[in-house]
Amino acid sequence: MEKSVQELAEFLKGTVEHDNPELRITGVNGLVEAGPKDISFAVPPHVEHCHLSKAGVMVLSSEDPELDGRPVIRVANPRAAFAALLELFRPQEEVERVISPYAYVSKKAKIGSNVAIQPFAVVEDDAEIGDGCVIYPHAYVGKRVKMGKDCTIYPNTTIREDCVLGDRVILQSGSVIGGDGFGYITQNGKHSKVLQTGNVVLQDDVEIGNNTCIDRATVDSTIVGKGTKIDNLVHLGHNDILGENCLVVAHVGISGSVTVGNNVTFAGQVGTVGHITIGSNCVFGGKTGITNNVPDNSVMGGFPAMPMKEWLRQEANLRKVGDMLKRVKALEKELAELKK
Amino acid sequence: MEKSVQELAEFLKGTVEHDNPELRITGVNGLVEAGPKDISFAVPPHVEHCHLSKAGVMVLSSEDPELDGRPVIRVANPRAAFAALLELFRPQEEVERVISPYAYVSKKAKIGSNVAIQPFAVVEDDAEIGDGCVIYPHAYVGKRVKMGKDCTIYPNTTIREDCVLGDRVILQSGSVIGGDGFGYITQNGKHSKVLQTGNVVLQDDVEIGNNTCIDRATVDSTIVGKGTKIDNLVHLGHNDILGENCLVVAHVGISGSVTVGNNVTFAGQVGTVGHITIGSNCVFGGKTGITNNVPDNSVMGGFPAMPMKEWLRQEANLRKVGDMLKRVKALEKELAELKK
Amino acid sequence: MEKSVQELAEFLKGTVEHDNPELRITGVNGLVEAGPKDISFAVPPHVEHCHLSKAGVMVLSSEDPELDGRPVIRVANPRAAFAALLELFRPQEEVERVISPYAYVSKKAKIGSNVAIQPFAVVEDDAEIGDGCVIYPHAYVGKRVKMGKDCTIYPNTTIREDCVLGDRVILQSGSVIGGDGFGYITQNGKHSKVLQTGNVVLQDDVEIGNNTCIDRATVDSTIVGKGTKIDNLVHLGHNDILGENCLVVAHVGISGSVTVGNNVTFAGQVGTVGHITIGSNCVFGGKTGITNNVPDNSVMGGFPAMPMKEWLRQEANLRKVGDMLKRVKALEKELAELKK
Repeated sequence: MEKSVQELAEFLKGTVEHDNPELRITGVNGLVEAGPKDISFAVPPHVEHCHLSKAGVMVLSSEDPELDGRPVIRVANPRAAFAALLELFRPQEEVERVISPYAYVSKKAKIGSNVAIQPFAVVEDDAEIGDGCVIYPHAYVGKRVKMGKDCTIYPNTTIREDCVLGDRVILQSGSVIGGDGFGYITQNGKHSKVLQTGNVVLQDDVEIGNNTCIDRATVDSTIVGKGTKIDNLVHLGHNDILGENCLVVAHVGISGSVTVGNNVTFAGQVGTVGHITIGSNCVFGGKTGITNNVPDNSVMGGFPAMPMKEWLRQEANLRKVGDMLKRVKALEKELAELKK
Repeated sequence: MEKSVQELAEFLKGTVEHDNPELRITGVNGLVEAGPKDISFAVPPHVEHCHLSKAGVMVLSSEDPELDGRPVIRVANPRAAFAALLELFRPQEEVERVISPYAYVSKKAKIGSNVAIQPFAVVEDDAEIGDGCVIYPHAYVGKRVKMGKDCTIYPNTTIREDCVLGDRVILQSGSVIGGDGFGYITQNGKHSKVLQTGNVVLQDDVEIGNNTCIDRATVDSTIVGKGTKIDNLVHLGHNDILGENCLVVAHVGISGSVTVGNNVTFAGQVGTVGHITIGSNCVFGGKTGITNNVPDNSVMGGFPAMPMKEWLRQEANLRKVGDMLKRVKALEKELAELKK
Repeated sequence: MEKSVQELAEFLKGTVEHDNPELRITGVNGLVEAGPKDISFAVPPHVEHCHLSKAGVMVLSSEDPELDGRPVIRVANPRAAFAALLELFRPQEEVERVISPYAYVSKKAKIGSNVAIQPFAVVEDDAEIGDGCVIYPHAYVGKRVKMGKDCTIYPNTTIREDCVLGDRVILQSGSVIGGDGFGYITQNGKHSKVLQTGNVVLQDDVEIGNNTCIDRATVDSTIVGKGTKIDNLVHLGHNDILGENCLVVAHVGISGSVTVGNNVTFAGQVGTVGHITIGSNCVFGGKTGITNNVPDNSVMGGFPAMPMKEWLRQEANLRKVGDMLKRVKALEKELAELKK
C-alpha cells in the first residue's frame, strides 16, 4: 500500500503542514524505528525528540511545536491517529473460516456462520458459538457455553461450562474463564469444598489478558461489564461484579464478592479484600491494598489504601523520620539542660 | 427436586421455626437472588438484610435474631448448611466415564476403572491413573506420573514427569505441577541451568487453583500436605514443603526451600524469601513480606513482616508523622525562644 | 553408574581429603536426603550441619572447616559441582525425536532435523523449527514463528505469530510468548484496542517460567536478551527490552516500554511503571515498586523505590515512630510546664 501525505491527512481528518506531494508513505512505525517512507507520531514528552526521527511524515497535535520542514499532519488525538494507521497499514491477518477436521466439536453444539475452529480446539455439548468467532488451537469451550458474535479465543484458553460471552469478546492465550471459586467450609481445621455452581458473564467488548483467571460464582454470576479490559495474570474472585469500561492492569487480585463501578482503573499489583464495594470513576495506583468500601471518584494509593495525595505526602514525610528522630533527641537533651 | 421445610430441616439436622407445611422448596440461592421457592442463608453482617430477601425459607444460626414469620431453619453452622444445600439441589454434573478416541493414552500407561479421559488429553508412558479420575481436554500427564483415586484434572493443566498425586486431588485449569524450579549457577555473570531432577507430591484432598505453578524439587520432592487448598496464580518454588490444611490465596509467591507447618493461611499477594521455616497455625495478612523464620501461632502483616497488631499500630502511627513533624518544628521554635 | 571418590574428584577438578578407595558412589542428593552411597554438598550456613548428613562423600569449598574423617572433595564452587554431579548421575531423559502422527504440522512449516513434535502440538504455516528442538503436547507455534536450535517447548505453551526464538531457548509450561499488549485508545470513556502488530524476540539461552507472559510489541519487538532467565507468573509488557543475563523472579510485573540493562536482578513481586530506563547490574529487593529511571549498579528496595540501605534504615526508623510520638508528647508537656 502506498499513500500520499494528503491522502493520509484525509484518512486521519487532519491538516497538512509542509506537504511533499511526491512522497509515498508505505508503512507506520514508532518514532525511533520509522524510516523515510514511514509515518510516525509523537505525544509529550516524546515530541521533543521528533527531529531525531527518520519518519517521512509525523502526526502531531495542534498544540505541539513546529517541526523541521518535514511534512506534518496535525490531528486532535495523535495516539488515536496512530491506532488508525496501524489498522490501515498493518491490518489484522484474515483467519480462514473453517472448522478443522482436527478439532473436536460436539454434534450437540450450535455453530454460527463464518466461524473458525482450529486444530485440537474442543467445543462441548450444547455450546453455542456466534457468527464470526475464531477459536484457536487447544481452546476448551465447555458444555452450554454461550458465545456471541465475532469473539476471538486464543490458544490454550479454558471456558468452563455454562459461562456466557457477549459479542466481540477477546480471550488472550491461557486465560481461564469460570474456574472454581476458592470457597471452603472449615470445620475442625479441615476445609471442605463448597460447590461453585454459578458461572461467569463477560459482556460485549470485554478483553481478558493472557493467563488471567476469572472464577465462576458460587451461585449466580461473576460479571465483567461491557468494554472492560483486563491485562495479564489478573485474578477475579467468585461473585465479583465489575462495571463497564474499567481497566485492570497485570497482577491485580480482586477477592471474592467485590462490586466495582464503571470506569475504574486498577494499576498493577493492586489487591483488595473481599465483600467490599468500589464506586465508579476511581483510580488506584500500583500495589494499592484496598481494605474498605471506596466512594465514587476516589484516587487512592498505599496500603491500607488512602487518598493518593495523602499517600504521596505521607511517603515524603516518612523519609524525614530518621532526621526527626535526631531532632527529638536533640530537643530532649536541650530541654534537660535547660531544666538543670 | 422438591423438598418440604421439614425435610430440609432433617437433612440439615436443624430445627424449624414458623413451619409452612404447604411450602415446596425447589432450589437454593444467595440472599439477594433467592425467590419464594428457594432456600437461602445468612451470617453476620448479612443477617440484618434477611427481611429483604424473597427466599421462601432462611437458614440461620441459633444466635441470630427472630425473623418476620417466614419459615426459618436453625442450624449450628449456616455456611456449612448452605454448602450441603448446594450439593442437594445443584449436584455436580456426572461426567461420562469413557476414554475418548481423540485422547492420546500411551499403551504403557495404567488406567484404573471408571476413568474419563477426554479429547486431546495426553497420558504418557508408565503413568498410573487411579480409579474414578476425570481428565479433561488438553491436560498433559507426563511419564511415570502417579495419580490416586477420584482426581479431577481440568483443561489445559500440565503434570510433568514423575509427579505424584494422592486421592481426590483437584487441579484447576491451566495449573502446572512439576515445572522446572528456578535454579542456576552464576559464573562470570552467566547463569547455567541446574537440572531439576526431583518431583512434586500433592497429598490427598489437595486443590490447586487456576494457572497456579508448583515447581519440582532440584532433588527429592516439593510437597503439598493433605487437605491444603491453593488459589489461583500462586507460585510455590522448588523444594517447598507445605503442611496440611493450609489455605494459600491468589498471587502468593513462596520462594524455594521454604518449610511451612499445618493450618497456615497466606492471604493474597504474600511473598516470602527462600530457605526459611514457618510454623503451624500462622496467619499472614494480604501483601505481607516474610523475610525470616516464623514461630507457630504467629499472626503477621507488613513488610518486613511483624506481628499484625504491631503492624496495624505502626500504620496508624505513620499517619501521624506529618502532624508530628509540625509539632517538632514548633517545639524547636518554642525552645529557641525560651533559651533567648 | 558407580564412581570412586578419586574419579569424582577428577570429574569436579577438586582435591580429596580422607579418601576411601573402596567406596563406590552411585548417586547425588541433598544434605538431608543423601545416604552412604551418595555424594552431597554444602555451602554456608548449611556447612555446620554437614556432620549430620549420611552422605558418603561431601563436596565443600577450601574455606569450609574440616569434617569428621569422612571423604571430602574440595572445589572452588560447591554449588557448581553439585550441578555437574546432577548432570552426571541424573542426566536428562532422552526424548524420542519423532513427529507424532497426532500432532498438527502445517505442510508449509520448515522442520529441522532431529526434532520431536509430540501429540496435539500445533505448528502453523511458515513456522521454522530449528534442529534438535523438542515440542511437547498442546504447544502452539503460530504462523511464521522462527525457532533456533535445541529449544525445549513444554506443554500448553503458546507462541503467537511472528515471534522469534534463538538457540537453546526453554519455555516452561503454560507460558505465553507474543500475546497482545495491553494497549487502548480511550475516547469518551471507551477503550478501543490498538492493534499489537510487533512481535517478541527471545535471544539465545533465554528461559521463560511456567505461565509467564511476554507481550508482543505494538510495533517493532519486545526483546529478552541472551541468557536472561525468567521465573513463573511474570508479566513483561509490550515493547519492553530486557538486557542479557538478567534474573527475573516470580510475580514480577514490568510495564510497557521499559528498557533494562544487563545483569539486572528483580526479586519476587517487584513492579515498575512504564516508559522508564533501568541501568545494568542493578538489584531490586522483593516487592520493590520502581517509579523512575534507575542508574547502573543500583541496589534498591521499597515503594517508591529508594537505595536499599536507605530503605532498610527507614524501615528500622518507622518502628520507632510510636515511641517518638510519646516522646514528642512528653516534650510538649515538659515545655509547657517550664513556660509556666
